[in-house]
Amino acid sequence: MDPYIIGINWGSSNFRAFRIGLDGTVSGRIEQPRGIAGLERAQMQALLEEVVAQWPHAARIYASGMIGSNIGWRDAGYVECPAALDVLAAHLHRTQIGAHAVAIVPGLACRRADGAPDIMRGEETELLGLIAAGALPANGLVALPGTHSKWVQLQDGAVASFVTAMSGEIFDRLTAAGLLASVVDGPAEDGPAFRAGVQAGHHGAGLGTLLFGARARVIRGDLARRDGASYLRGVLIGAELADVVRLWPAALAHDIPLVGAAPVCSLYAHAVQALGGQGHGIASHAASTRGFHALHQAAEALA
Amino acid sequence: MDPYIIGINWGSSNFRAFRIGLDGTVSGRIEQPRGIAGLERAQMQALLEEVVAQWPHAARIYASGMIGSNIGWRDAGYVECPAALDVLAAHLHRTQIGAHAVAIVPGLACRRADGAPDIMRGEETELLGLIAAGALPANGLVALPGTHSKWVQLQDGAVASFVTAMSGEIFDRLTAAGLLASVVDGPAEDGPAFRAGVQAGHHGAGLGTLLFGARARVIRGDLARRDGASYLRGVLIGAELADVVRLWPAALAHDIPLVGAAPVCSLYAHAVQALGGQGHGIASHAASTRGFHALHQAAEALA
Repeated sequence: MDPYIIGINWGSSNFRAFRIGLDGTVSGRIEQPRGIAGLERAQMQALLEEVVAQWPHAARIYASGMIGSNIGWRDAGYVECPAALDVLAAHLHRTQIGAHAVAIVPGLACRRADGAPDIMRGEETELLGLIAAGALPANGLVALPGTHSKWVQLQDGAVASFVTAMSGEIFDRLTAAGLLASVVDGPAEDGPAFRAGVQAGHHGAGLGTLLFGARARVIRGDLARRDGASYLRGVLIGAELADVVRLWPAALAHDIPLVGAAPVCSLYAHAVQALGGQGHGIASHAASTRGFHALHQAAEALA
Repeated sequence: MDPYIIGINWGSSNFRAFRIGLDGTVSGRIEQPRGIAGLERAQMQALLEEVVAQWPHAARIYASGMIGSNIGWRDAGYVECPAALDVLAAHLHRTQIGAHAVAIVPGLACRRADGAPDIMRGEETELLGLIAAGALPANGLVALPGTHSKWVQLQDGAVASFVTAMSGEIFDRLTAAGLLASVVDGPAEDGPAFRAGVQAGHHGAGLGTLLFGARARVIRGDLARRDGASYLRGVLIGAELADVVRLWPAALAHDIPLVGAAPVCSLYAHAVQALGGQGHGIASHAASTRGFHALHQAAEALA
């Protein structure tokens, strides 16, 4: 049987384990909605043991994501930016989960020019995997839209700086109940309402007034309820892009790779386009496995 | 027995009924956490009947707040700004709740200079009551901090324009669970962390990045967890004030009356002061009763 490693993208909500051949080929995957947010330590250990029972001959086991946070299995800390693959491989946090040796990937931390700190945990593995696989350029801005969107400046194949916007979580929590729940009826999609939101969020007032304003617009007949989600998403993404441009004025001047799930990347591409820029989606499902593969190679080279 | 009216401030969360003498004296109050958000129509009727059973000889019954919304008893609509007491009295929505005639106060709607619509329902009664009682000047900016803060421009004793910021609801929903719940440990209070938040929210990035940034600051040691709520509240209030100044550039040039609960008005006063302005709290508990009293007098004058 061909040798392989196990790579586990273990976040707050989801557990995704992959069996990865030494040539990078994925020969098995186990996905469960069992993120660390809902697990006690004993349950984390049991879940890992289930996976190892199916794949008992891994050369190494790697894990990335919130499993390495202070609410996961072990705090794997952060590596300071700028950070490239070799630095990450040199700072793998080697620990035991039950009887098994696991190398947990540290997160990345940066401090932007204005002194504001930022952190990521899990995205570093995806990013460095995509760079190693040539799917991302070694220089320039890349976006990872999601619940906590990351906008990352790459420099010579390293993560140089980044900013996080929690637009996705704001949308989820404010529309789940309360005032804005009554304004949302159906999914968000590109169109006039979405683009009006993008413009408002990018050029106008802050989120505190714009988000309430969505309800006023629906009540007063300016906005159809079925367009509520689209308008709200537009406002949040437009505001997020304003923050990106504030940090990096040339952000919209070049084509922006958008790494993530297709629907959200599509919305972001439309938003970027509405603001005069260009973006293209990059499927992220292979990003983690490429990352684990590249990390393993780098780690073995260090050994 | 002296004649009296019943005035009911019936919001989403709370029911506050007052027995008000024709000279404005409050001779009874019934307060229950039974806002319309948790009541079916039959329950609304039963609650009103309980109150009338205690105060069976009211000359008139008035109700303001979300009871007059499309999720309350009857949609009492909105009066367009500019709107003063007489206009509101002329547009009372007269309806029956069970066997009882009730006059529901309409909300107010405005459309600001940039075309953005806004709405209020319940605050109009408080405001016009305070003006009629001489507790507010007939001209100038007044703030009503709360879950959905209102900033109102008064002109010749009328509500001319206003803007709503849902800062309070954003704080509540984002800190109840999820990412920011882990960053909040203890109540918000004035101090260096609050004021740092005010400055950041007023001058810096948008809420999407600043709110995530609070977690990064705590994780990286820039902000103590016990200061998390203070910093977050500061960011939200600072951003709200930026929106107010964007609309009305001279907003911070004059002393701002702050109408609402003492703790939140105190925080807003500190925020305004941190930005070079001045604010003073006005207790709001008498605002509704003064409003009902003034509305009754105006309505009787029209009859």
